[in-house]
Amino acid sequence: MISMLNDHDARKVLQSAHVARLGCIVNGEPYIVPISYNFEGDDLYSHSLPGTKIKALRENPRACVQVDEIESDLHWRSAMGFGKFEEITKENERATILAKLLRRFPMLTPVEASIAADGCSPEVIVFRIRIDRITGVSES
Amino acid sequence: MISMLNDHDARKVLQSAHVARLGCIVNGEPYIVPISYNFEGDDLYSHSLPGTKIKALRENPRACVQVDEIESDLHWRSAMGFGKFEEITKENERATILAKLLRRFPMLTPVEASIAADGCSPEVIVFRIRIDRITGVSES
Repeated sequence: MISMLNDHDARKVLQSAHVARLGCIVNGEPYIVPISYNFEGDDLYSHSLPGTKIKALRENPRACVQVDEIESDLHWRSAMGFGKFEEITKENERATILAKLLRRFPMLTPVEASIAADGCSPEVIVFRIRIDRITGVSES
Repeated sequence: MISMLNDHDARKVLQSAHVARLGCIVNGEPYIVPISYNFEGDDLYSHSLPGTKIKALRENPRACVQVDEIESDLHWRSAMGFGKFEEITKENERATILAKLLRRFPMLTPVEASIAADGCSPEVIVFRIRIDRITGVSES
């Protein structure tokens, strides 16, 4: 049976995963990429190298992030957060966020670690999605 | 190191998974849902109950489907197919597609099985995404 998740449960799905799918609009078309992230309060934090999604989000900052817990085709939960892309440019804020991402993802390589130590590396984009709406669905 | 997948490898990622994330545009915003699917030739087949994504895709049929194989934060592949949503309305075609989806997803319940046997059940939307462009990225 498919049913809606309440806000609390949808938020829990968003909080519990490490990988989300980030959706944005590229040349009028939907576009999806997997991201590692950290969810704090109403903000989802992540980082990226420059590329298609960053270019698109700078032009149109509306984004969604989707997270699911799939046990089987008939037992799953999916939550989506909708919000606005904001780039973090202050060096100390960048460093704090990158350090938190690094703590959460111990698999990150020494290269990434040095990026985190040097938050001002201009190639790495640090960003948040300010979530203003959350929805979720489950089937069980 | 992040690198682009060639068409062959990106296609293999799309063919090998069972769950894709379908992206569409809802009220000008990106929207993502997980779907079970079958990929044949250049078409991705799936089915759905009526709802937000179907309403949106009827209005704006451009869609993307994203599939990933994530071993770890630093070892993953992600492929995306872009294309056009098309509803399948012919009863025999619906029945054939639903039967194939059922064979691929043995977890589907007796309720779904009866839907597949009776392809003309009007509540179930059977659709394809006609893929016209495939891209892929890997990190390893």
